[in-house]
Amino acid sequence: MSNTIHKRLNALRKFMEEKGLHAFIIPSTDSHLSEYPASHWASREWISGFTGSAGTVVVTREKAGLWTDSRYFLQAASTGIDLFKDGLPQTPAIDEWLASELGEGEYVGIDGNVYAAKEAFSLTHKLNIKGLHLISDYDPFDTVWHDRPEIPKNPFFVLPEKYTGEPAHKKIARICDNIEKNGAESLLVASLDTIAWIFNIRGNDVKCNPVTVSYAYISRKETVLFIDPKKLSEETTSYLKAERVTIAEYSKVYDYVSKIKTSVCLDSSKITFSLYNTIPTENRIVDIPSPADLMKSIKNEAEIQGFNNAMERDGVALVRFFMWLEKAVPEGGVTEIMIPEKLVEYRSQQDNFVGESFDTISGYGPNGAIVHYHVSPESSVEIKPEGFLLVDSGAQYFDGTTDITRTVAVGPLTEQMKKDYTMVLKGHISLATAIYPQGTRGSQLDILARKSMWDNGINYLHGTGHGIGHFLNVHEGPQSIRMNENPTTLQIGMVTSNEPGLYRAGKYGIRTENLILTQHETTTEFGDFYSFKTLTLCPIDTTPIVKEMLTKEEIIWFNEYHKFVYDRLSPLLTEEEKGWLKEKTDEI
Amino acid sequence: MSNTIHKRLNALRKFMEEKGLHAFIIPSTDSHLSEYPASHWASREWISGFTGSAGTVVVTREKAGLWTDSRYFLQAASTGIDLFKDGLPQTPAIDEWLASELGEGEYVGIDGNVYAAKEAFSLTHKLNIKGLHLISDYDPFDTVWHDRPEIPKNPFFVLPEKYTGEPAHKKIARICDNIEKNGAESLLVASLDTIAWIFNIRGNDVKCNPVTVSYAYISRKETVLFIDPKKLSEETTSYLKAERVTIAEYSKVYDYVSKIKTSVCLDSSKITFSLYNTIPTENRIVDIPSPADLMKSIKNEAEIQGFNNAMERDGVALVRFFMWLEKAVPEGGVTEIMIPEKLVEYRSQQDNFVGESFDTISGYGPNGAIVHYHVSPESSVEIKPEGFLLVDSGAQYFDGTTDITRTVAVGPLTEQMKKDYTMVLKGHISLATAIYPQGTRGSQLDILARKSMWDNGINYLHGTGHGIGHFLNVHEGPQSIRMNENPTTLQIGMVTSNEPGLYRAGKYGIRTENLILTQHETTTEFGDFYSFKTLTLCPIDTTPIVKEMLTKEEIIWFNEYHKFVYDRLSPLLTEEEKGWLKEKTDEI
Repeated sequence: MSNTIHKRLNALRKFMEEKGLHAFIIPSTDSHLSEYPASHWASREWISGFTGSAGTVVVTREKAGLWTDSRYFLQAASTGIDLFKDGLPQTPAIDEWLASELGEGEYVGIDGNVYAAKEAFSLTHKLNIKGLHLISDYDPFDTVWHDRPEIPKNPFFVLPEKYTGEPAHKKIARICDNIEKNGAESLLVASLDTIAWIFNIRGNDVKCNPVTVSYAYISRKETVLFIDPKKLSEETTSYLKAERVTIAEYSKVYDYVSKIKTSVCLDSSKITFSLYNTIPTENRIVDIPSPADLMKSIKNEAEIQGFNNAMERDGVALVRFFMWLEKAVPEGGVTEIMIPEKLVEYRSQQDNFVGESFDTISGYGPNGAIVHYHVSPESSVEIKPEGFLLVDSGAQYFDGTTDITRTVAVGPLTEQMKKDYTMVLKGHISLATAIYPQGTRGSQLDILARKSMWDNGINYLHGTGHGIGHFLNVHEGPQSIRMNENPTTLQIGMVTSNEPGLYRAGKYGIRTENLILTQHETTTEFGDFYSFKTLTLCPIDTTPIVKEMLTKEEIIWFNEYHKFVYDRLSPLLTEEEKGWLKEKTDEI
Repeated sequence: MSNTIHKRLNALRKFMEEKGLHAFIIPSTDSHLSEYPASHWASREWISGFTGSAGTVVVTREKAGLWTDSRYFLQAASTGIDLFKDGLPQTPAIDEWLASELGEGEYVGIDGNVYAAKEAFSLTHKLNIKGLHLISDYDPFDTVWHDRPEIPKNPFFVLPEKYTGEPAHKKIARICDNIEKNGAESLLVASLDTIAWIFNIRGNDVKCNPVTVSYAYISRKETVLFIDPKKLSEETTSYLKAERVTIAEYSKVYDYVSKIKTSVCLDSSKITFSLYNTIPTENRIVDIPSPADLMKSIKNEAEIQGFNNAMERDGVALVRFFMWLEKAVPEGGVTEIMIPEKLVEYRSQQDNFVGESFDTISGYGPNGAIVHYHVSPESSVEIKPEGFLLVDSGAQYFDGTTDITRTVAVGPLTEQMKKDYTMVLKGHISLATAIYPQGTRGSQLDILARKSMWDNGINYLHGTGHGIGHFLNVHEGPQSIRMNENPTTLQIGMVTSNEPGLYRAGKYGIRTENLILTQHETTTEFGDFYSFKTLTLCPIDTTPIVKEMLTKEEIIWFNEYHKFVYDRLSPLLTEEEKGWLKEKTDEI
């Protein structure tokens, strides 16, 4: 453990002692339950040095533990804090560990301002039956983190209707219809991407996520956006007014909520414990997955057109990037850390480019097996002309968000590598070509992406697909395609990723990812059936494919996909690039 | 609607009026929440004439409605009571319908003695928010059903350890370990099959289900079996004593439970509302899926051996049955109703045969499309030498329970029939050959059985697999393989059915069902992987197969399965039978 971390932990322990707390739990999120919080809320990273997007630190008077999932096992092991591997049967839950570490009647602290209400309810219950008490009143980091960044106050902007397809006041009216059907009169929203979608605004308060820090209260009578006045311009103020939105100060949300008289719809997993507890106890609370989140996930025609346009531009940038890579690697000197830079260089030449949609994962060889590897100057290795390079990257454009993974052979491969690559490809194709009845959940389809691997005693421990925002967060709900159950059904207009992978620790990692749109396929006497349309436009490396492992149908899909990529991208390329792409998309 | 039903409904309405009730809900179950209740509890059938295994009747002062699932849509439509199709999006839930039919503040009755506590809690809540009240105090059928059968008082018997593999006191000790891990000191059981399994006793109170009506209370200090004294013999009394079981009168369970001082483990979906409410309010209740049910589902070696032995005898009977069928149909005069009789005839010639495990479904032509078709003298049609006959049947043997469906071509088929049959077979094989990591739920595998159909816009609306008891109920939990989520993972030793089907209403039905055992397959760097072993021994009709639709791997599985059937059954057959089976199991 580094000296800095040691000092920070001690400062926290001193704070805990002053407040009579025997443990403190620091989640990775913020007052908006974001996956990626602004730096003001990066207290979990500050206290532990662990930069992964998911993970919880628990500090007791003597010990410190970090719970995180398989994506981050390798990274987390190097923090010096005890690693608890989430998802493995032998790993104790945080409450179980606390019960074994603390004495009867001792106190566990959380900051109720950065803890989901639902999780806090559950934690309270779990600790209580173990004889422990939960205290949620303190934010120790306001005290111990001296140079803590302030809550972002960057201006936001209005996304034009040509991209959003629906004005804010219409979305608000649809939300009101929806919550009324659920027996509520108002909707309380803390999720920044949901707010951005509802109001058709975008910001840059959080790296890679074009959101603006705010809260929203929506009802037929009044819709309020709680936002720092510094963020407002004359233009945005008059825009909000025209959309019939009342503007209030960000910090006034507590005051306002404490006085509401409506029955409130909210999602207790997306509202903090503190905000939830601010609602007057006499108000009826309808605690359901946010109807606005489901609405957001179902993309309208303008959004889908935007995705298609963004994919073309992203595809052109990717062609240029992979052409460069192919030439540069054999010449020597290409390192992992150059990959994100080159990708931004090519993407930034495209219209409508805003920035990355997440930190590029560029893992060469063994680093490819670290599922959410974040290359640093220290870790960056040279990409030699052998084995696999895995590149998972994405961009924000005004008209869409991209997220794509390609694994490319940068030189000779072993037979095992080729077999593994082909298994991943088979899984990818199997999901891409799925046909499924209306009402199907992602967890029912997940096995399609894994079966080729399961048949060989192989599995990957991450999800197969996540929802993706329209010029918004690269990860969004409510749908997913994964082993875990998720009651959300796949609905027409949803955009989800298709990203099976295979990771041999210490050797290499393989992942092939496209974005897929749920569309209507057919209506028969047995009902409505849906299918996926692949949106991503980029060749999939053919050199590692063991063709004998593919079925006739898989080969047809593959060749058709490559033809589709060529037909869409070639008009946008130079002759040289076109020639390169022709070769890369030739029939196998 | 028949006159009898009309009179019965009026008698109930009179009772309702006297008690101030505006509606009464009559579920299909009993005081033990059985799927198949003894005739004493068949009040739903008595009031409606509807004989399906699942369905709920709701009677208001003016109307009567029957809610049932797709298996029974055709049958239910003929009752004269309004049919509400469960599972279709446009069908109102019972509480919604009641809210639309009744006025604010009106009263809905249920008999708390035949209503699962969990459902009653949920119903109370749903009715309350609609301004209706639930009254659970009355059993109207004690008054209005004059010739109501009494609660069965048949003797039970002890199943020897050579079949059960574990004495009752050891099971009880394991249950106590298990409930203690869940923070409880006692287990309250009303499920008749669970009681039969725990105490190694079997009875014949319920048709097809070898159970005996009773309750059980299990704790380290005392284990009590609540049972009618008329059911006891000297032998069973001394057996229970030797297993350290206290015997109490069946009806004393309420008295006893009202005085318990332990923290109680129970499954509120398997305990009636009345019994649940008998538990003193100061007792802690651990409401979880019954640990005993999970233990019961994981078969031990003796039970698995028993299944294997029972399958051989069942297989021999089935060979003789299908030989007879093949000869008899072209001769004419074979009707659907003869099928169950013939099956019992052949099965009863086998050792250890006890009876049918459920009412045989023998559906010819359009009747095959009625998923849970129960042939009656009125419905029975002649089986002509053309098209499909679907036969779903099973037997109880002292050493195991069987459940098998075969669809056979009794004459020429259309191309569509052959294609449909082959799709079902593909689904069956895909599930039978699945390999899956430890921790996989049935809902993740379900698509394997459906994919060949979904790809063609076809689906079936029943589950793909249910658990099956060891000389116990043909349907048991907690595992299942179906579209709906079920958190239970498939564990080594579980026996489940594999029964995809395809139904063309008004034309024909196809289903191919074997029982499959979860077994360990392999351990790799990615963990433990499981697979299925097919237990059922009976040829699958080859004549409808479109071989070109099968993959090489599917053909290999099919031929290997047929070789396995022949190798296991042929030593038990006559030369003539052997010759017939050889031909039926020849390689395709």
